[in-house]
Amino acid sequence: MWQLVCHFFANKNLLCLVIIAKKVYNITYNIHWKEVDKLATKLKIIPLGGVGEIGKNITLIECGDDIIAIDCGIIFPDDEMPGIDLVIPDFTYIEKNIEKFRGFLITHGHEDHIGALPYALKKFNVPVYGSKLTIALIEHKIQENKISKCSLNCVSAGDVINIGCFNIEFIRTSHSIPGALALAITTPLGTIIHTGDFKVDYTPIDGEPMDIARFSYYGSKGVLALMSDSTNVELQGHTPSEIAIGKTFEHYFDIATGRIIVASFASNIYRIQQIADVAAQFDRVICFQGRSMVNIVNIARELGYLNIDDSRIVDIEKLENYKEDEICVVTTGSQGEPMSGLFRMANSSHKLNIGKGDTVIISASTIPGNERGVARVINQLYQKGARVIYDSTADVHVSGHARREELKLMLTIVKPKYFIPVHGEYRHLYQHAELAERMGVKRENIFVTENGKVVEFSKNGAKFNGSVPWGSIMIDGIGVGDIGNVVLKDRITLSHDGLFAVVIALRKDNGEVIAEPEVLSRGFVYVKESEELIKGAIDVARNVSKQFALVQKSEWSQVKTILKTELKDYLYDKTKRNPMVLPIIVEI
Amino acid sequence: MWQLVCHFFANKNLLCLVIIAKKVYNITYNIHWKEVDKLATKLKIIPLGGVGEIGKNITLIECGDDIIAIDCGIIFPDDEMPGIDLVIPDFTYIEKNIEKFRGFLITHGHEDHIGALPYALKKFNVPVYGSKLTIALIEHKIQENKISKCSLNCVSAGDVINIGCFNIEFIRTSHSIPGALALAITTPLGTIIHTGDFKVDYTPIDGEPMDIARFSYYGSKGVLALMSDSTNVELQGHTPSEIAIGKTFEHYFDIATGRIIVASFASNIYRIQQIADVAAQFDRVICFQGRSMVNIVNIARELGYLNIDDSRIVDIEKLENYKEDEICVVTTGSQGEPMSGLFRMANSSHKLNIGKGDTVIISASTIPGNERGVARVINQLYQKGARVIYDSTADVHVSGHARREELKLMLTIVKPKYFIPVHGEYRHLYQHAELAERMGVKRENIFVTENGKVVEFSKNGAKFNGSVPWGSIMIDGIGVGDIGNVVLKDRITLSHDGLFAVVIALRKDNGEVIAEPEVLSRGFVYVKESEELIKGAIDVARNVSKQFALVQKSEWSQVKTILKTELKDYLYDKTKRNPMVLPIIVEI
Repeated sequence: MWQLVCHFFANKNLLCLVIIAKKVYNITYNIHWKEVDKLATKLKIIPLGGVGEIGKNITLIECGDDIIAIDCGIIFPDDEMPGIDLVIPDFTYIEKNIEKFRGFLITHGHEDHIGALPYALKKFNVPVYGSKLTIALIEHKIQENKISKCSLNCVSAGDVINIGCFNIEFIRTSHSIPGALALAITTPLGTIIHTGDFKVDYTPIDGEPMDIARFSYYGSKGVLALMSDSTNVELQGHTPSEIAIGKTFEHYFDIATGRIIVASFASNIYRIQQIADVAAQFDRVICFQGRSMVNIVNIARELGYLNIDDSRIVDIEKLENYKEDEICVVTTGSQGEPMSGLFRMANSSHKLNIGKGDTVIISASTIPGNERGVARVINQLYQKGARVIYDSTADVHVSGHARREELKLMLTIVKPKYFIPVHGEYRHLYQHAELAERMGVKRENIFVTENGKVVEFSKNGAKFNGSVPWGSIMIDGIGVGDIGNVVLKDRITLSHDGLFAVVIALRKDNGEVIAEPEVLSRGFVYVKESEELIKGAIDVARNVSKQFALVQKSEWSQVKTILKTELKDYLYDKTKRNPMVLPIIVEI
Repeated sequence: MWQLVCHFFANKNLLCLVIIAKKVYNITYNIHWKEVDKLATKLKIIPLGGVGEIGKNITLIECGDDIIAIDCGIIFPDDEMPGIDLVIPDFTYIEKNIEKFRGFLITHGHEDHIGALPYALKKFNVPVYGSKLTIALIEHKIQENKISKCSLNCVSAGDVINIGCFNIEFIRTSHSIPGALALAITTPLGTIIHTGDFKVDYTPIDGEPMDIARFSYYGSKGVLALMSDSTNVELQGHTPSEIAIGKTFEHYFDIATGRIIVASFASNIYRIQQIADVAAQFDRVICFQGRSMVNIVNIARELGYLNIDDSRIVDIEKLENYKEDEICVVTTGSQGEPMSGLFRMANSSHKLNIGKGDTVIISASTIPGNERGVARVINQLYQKGARVIYDSTADVHVSGHARREELKLMLTIVKPKYFIPVHGEYRHLYQHAELAERMGVKRENIFVTENGKVVEFSKNGAKFNGSVPWGSIMIDGIGVGDIGNVVLKDRITLSHDGLFAVVIALRKDNGEVIAEPEVLSRGFVYVKESEELIKGAIDVARNVSKQFALVQKSEWSQVKTILKTELKDYLYDKTKRNPMVLPIIVEI
């Protein structure tokens, strides 16, 4: 029997949580099911994000009158979304079923799992469950977004909670952030296991490996469906343990004679712990740089996820009190992001000016799309005389996602009847599905699904059954979802060949042109060197504009279209470029 | 003694070349040096492109009254150059020294080595030297660009030519295109070896490995300076032989039951030969798709670089006469390029509609920056039901560039006095320099140089001595170099937040506003849903515009600036976006 009571004081910086009933291992379930008719009940799994893409993970589990959501993340915009800040899932289906919606289960604290929560919690005041670190990171977001009312609830691995007709056990996994939890969601129709993001690390930094026994327990009891992380399915073998890169750090700390600067993902607390440990070993103090690095380190230290002695941490202002070989800086910027710590250090726009004798270790993989930015920073660091260690030249990073052998282990111990690969582009899902089939899951029981698509379970089995609204809601400035394809298309056109505007002033009564056409271009040609081209364009505009006076006012829009077409043709003919041509008519 | 006479019939499709004197191996040099004063002569090595970047390779060798150029390539624009088609080197220094300029030595036929030649040959009517395939690919470009006058000259490995005070021997290397040649340029001050792009392939497809003996010959005679390819210096070990991936092809051809579609770089003739051979082995006909693939295959077959029986090649229209397991399609599109063969096949906009049962092999690495495009195509192919084999999942590609062990071999046999790493970003050049130092080249004799920088050799040694004009000339449509930073910056601004134009009509005599402000936006907000925002902007514009009538005409530009600033502030305040604000004044 379980009971969980959480007191969450939203105004305090620290989370206070009292879990009254504690878990007893291998306890026999004795759940107060809500009254459900098992024969009539249907169970639905509906991903609103995170399948067919790596990012903005959110999956709904719906049964009877209850809906819960697993994760609520963002995805960063790709090159087809210029100017967009970030992208969140479409919550329409939840809004339409708000009375059924019971809360969010969050597997871990990465942005692609928690980033969209502030947008969701502005709409839905439902409880959120996650590990201590996950909840602390969410709380930080909530405060930044000035959301006053919300119920954040900490759980530990092994805890079981009851939401509507669901009983959920949180199971410890390993990932590149502490506090990663898988979910065993027991429903009236059977148990669903959702792995979250995971790897199988037998020698994790915190000494607590994935709870294989608990997955096995469910496997031997019988699992209806497994949803498993597909990110690294392309890769053979087993992802190395986080501990494996400690040796690389030791080597470079050993040979370094100047300062050491390590750039890493701020949320990779295990990595930061390793850096801190090796820094202590080589008697170097640590200075943290970059807003998110400082924030997350503070949170992780307060919660006990990161053990660094106060005396070993120094502010940047105090670094001058130390010799170069007594200093280790840990910073953001491993993706070459403009304005990040490392970017500014490489660009001489940071207090810490990297130079000859310094060793820079970029302890991260490069996320697809960031290659050029990272290369630029590495080149700049070399030019400043630093030694740079990065993934092409040394083992400075391991992934947080399971490769094929680990995925096979998960399939073997969970032995699901149905399998739904998640967290991957289509190619990953497909390869994971193939793997599951080879591991004994029946082909007809494997669902390579899409965002919005409903997989429905009933007493008769499982099938795809329609779909619900889903989408990519773009955030630009304060606008949420107001940017659509037209605006994006315009941005892309403008970025390719710029714009060419022409203003025609007409008498509003008879269409007589009453001033020379004004033209203006941006991003198209260098105007000072294009006098003739501009003159020609004015001639075209002047000639076409005469037609305004010759037609009815109702036909002016047709003349405007002709003006646009003729200018476009003229400009393309002269330059082989296609700027956006904007005729503007001013009626006087 | 050497003599080379070339007859080049520019109007014929095929190159005709008569080399009257043939090379005798290990011949002792007995060169008619132009009269030069060895004591006073200075030798300059001036890269105009290809150092500090991977692409647009061109290096000048200047001695006395003679300048020759090695290669003349393009680079593709990066994400900071939206809308730009391609980028070529700045030829200003050659133009200023046109009377000294003697010709181009081309190491091989890749775009980053020949792509800018049409632009150069429009300016300089000088001879061009390269291997048979290289010259044929250049001729194709020359014809496309309708350049009538030019002197293209074929050379073979082992040939020696005399240009001005230079004697140049062409030395066979291996690379991912046939006909790759290194250069031994003997000057009055000593011999310079330029490797071109190379790898050390002991088992090349054409059976003719790199001429290690010839490099060794020069090494034992004494080499003044080595310029060596740095592209793969980050990678340990030895790049595998091209032949290594034959096994992968055999495996997938063996198990495939439907059609096989292979995407590769069109210029990788060796790869295409391997595909053709394995297709023949498994009794499949070949169909070539994609414009550049068809062009290059035709050229390579005519010149004897590619041996495929006519009977094995079929047109796409005839494919219906064959069973699916009798078909192999070889296409462009390995980089996910829009409108390439594979892209259109994946998008169902190609005659060949890929579907269930087909095997697609992407036999190429992904060039940085193309990751997302390639991933998109792979996902689409999977969604159409194809099996897709690509570099993350199988050994389907080997590089054409030497890794560290090969670079060490080159340094060992050439034993240069001076070393200049080329063909790489700064990090590559730096690491190659470090490697050379470890291999025994004196630190002060290693020049990590930059585009435009002059390395000057004299009887007193070598030093950096100033620089010459260099740059990235952007080609956009028919414009060569007319796009500058202002235009690019405008394009980037427009792509992020679009534009917001406001038109104010004034009486030209007194500044009285004579019509409501017209506003127009693109790529900024969805106008239909932003009525209030637009109304507010018109209010701002109307209020500010009143000032035109209150000030002297000479101060109107200041009012215009206020108008721009206030609108920018208003729009940012309301949307947190920063569109380009364009006030346009029409005087009536």
